[in-house]
Amino acid sequence: VQLRSADLAALDRRRRAALVNSLTGFKSANLVGTSDGMGRSNLAIMSSLVHLGSSPALFGLVLRPDSVERHTLDNIRRTGVYSVNHVHEGIVAAAHQTAARYPREISEFAATGLTEHWVEDFDAPLVAEAAVRLGLALRDEISLEINGTRLLIGEVCYVDVPDRALAADGSLDVGAAGSVALAGLDRYYRTSLYKRMAYAKPDLPPREIAER
Amino acid sequence: VQLRSADLAALDRRRRAALVNSLTGFKSANLVGTSDGMGRSNLAIMSSLVHLGSSPALFGLVLRPDSVERHTLDNIRRTGVYSVNHVHEGIVAAAHQTAARYPREISEFAATGLTEHWVEDFDAPLVAEAAVRLGLALRDEISLEINGTRLLIGEVCYVDVPDRALAADGSLDVGAAGSVALAGLDRYYRTSLYKRMAYAKPDLPPREIAER
Repeated sequence: VQLRSADLAALDRRRRAALVNSLTGFKSANLVGTSDGMGRSNLAIMSSLVHLGSSPALFGLVLRPDSVERHTLDNIRRTGVYSVNHVHEGIVAAAHQTAARYPREISEFAATGLTEHWVEDFDAPLVAEAAVRLGLALRDEISLEINGTRLLIGEVCYVDVPDRALAADGSLDVGAAGSVALAGLDRYYRTSLYKRMAYAKPDLPPREIAER
Repeated sequence: VQLRSADLAALDRRRRAALVNSLTGFKSANLVGTSDGMGRSNLAIMSSLVHLGSSPALFGLVLRPDSVERHTLDNIRRTGVYSVNHVHEGIVAAAHQTAARYPREISEFAATGLTEHWVEDFDAPLVAEAAVRLGLALRDEISLEINGTRLLIGEVCYVDVPDRALAADGSLDVGAAGSVALAGLDRYYRTSLYKRMAYAKPDLPPREIAER
């Protein structure tokens, strides 16, 4: 089917949201853990993490201030840190449930059965059940005037990844780590490695890297 | 393995890039098509597309001006439009090859064997071989001071998706559409639907949607 701007505008709100959210393609499924600094924790699933740079290691995270993500935003502003934890098959149901509109005084950890994991000198809870866990420190917050969303820029200051999923070149095979892919608002996918491609050069044809 | 900021900083540049690029998790693999308005086309694979909103339909795209993405950025500034085309299994090798540093006068379409597809009233080429094709109009360009990257904000003005991959609620099953997931710099993954989850509510346990 083909749609133009007027067709998109004519869709009812829910159908448009369902379609548009799926058009970017596969996304990461990450649990973002925060604390209010006074003993209350928050956990929220997000699919808007984007790589901004490796040196220093900077990630962007898009938040909508009018949604359940408000608690997360308040906590990050207060403590300056947040954790990012990859969702894997075993925790898909609990991870998805963190999107429910729980009141501020209820921790999504307790509500969904996930376990807080704390590391020294980092004031946000990580997820004990996750295999890939990151700690980020807030470096900038940008307001996108066009629709009121916020882009948080964080620097990676803590990395905990399974040894078995690390490749010889230092990269992490997130498929081997068990992470799932998310698409749209609610579809979680298993993955299997199809091809690993060598660095592209204009004078050479595409070559695969034989990894397994 | 666990790393702190100092450990990350101590990695050599290539190993750090390989690791950090894989830490966000799965990403979309999209071919971004542009034209200079004078008959020269450009095509570049990107994994930094992020959903910003559905009403209007806005996507962010992160570009690094110092890289091969420079030609894309110049073209988008000139014409105000760009296409986004999902990579599927059949075009992974060609899509990856668009990342090579071809000179400006060489079109990555010609160099990689992909075919330009033009639609009325839209001044950027789409990819004929792609099953999911979008047209976007530039709405804003934001410079991220922290590391010089650019966030382009585009509004979706053209959508072409396969009917067979559309669900009853209007969403697109990108797995059924054949799109691949990308992780890190060079790993392409096949996917299979694991679970589709119902809208999360605080007073209900997590429920699956039986889709197939």
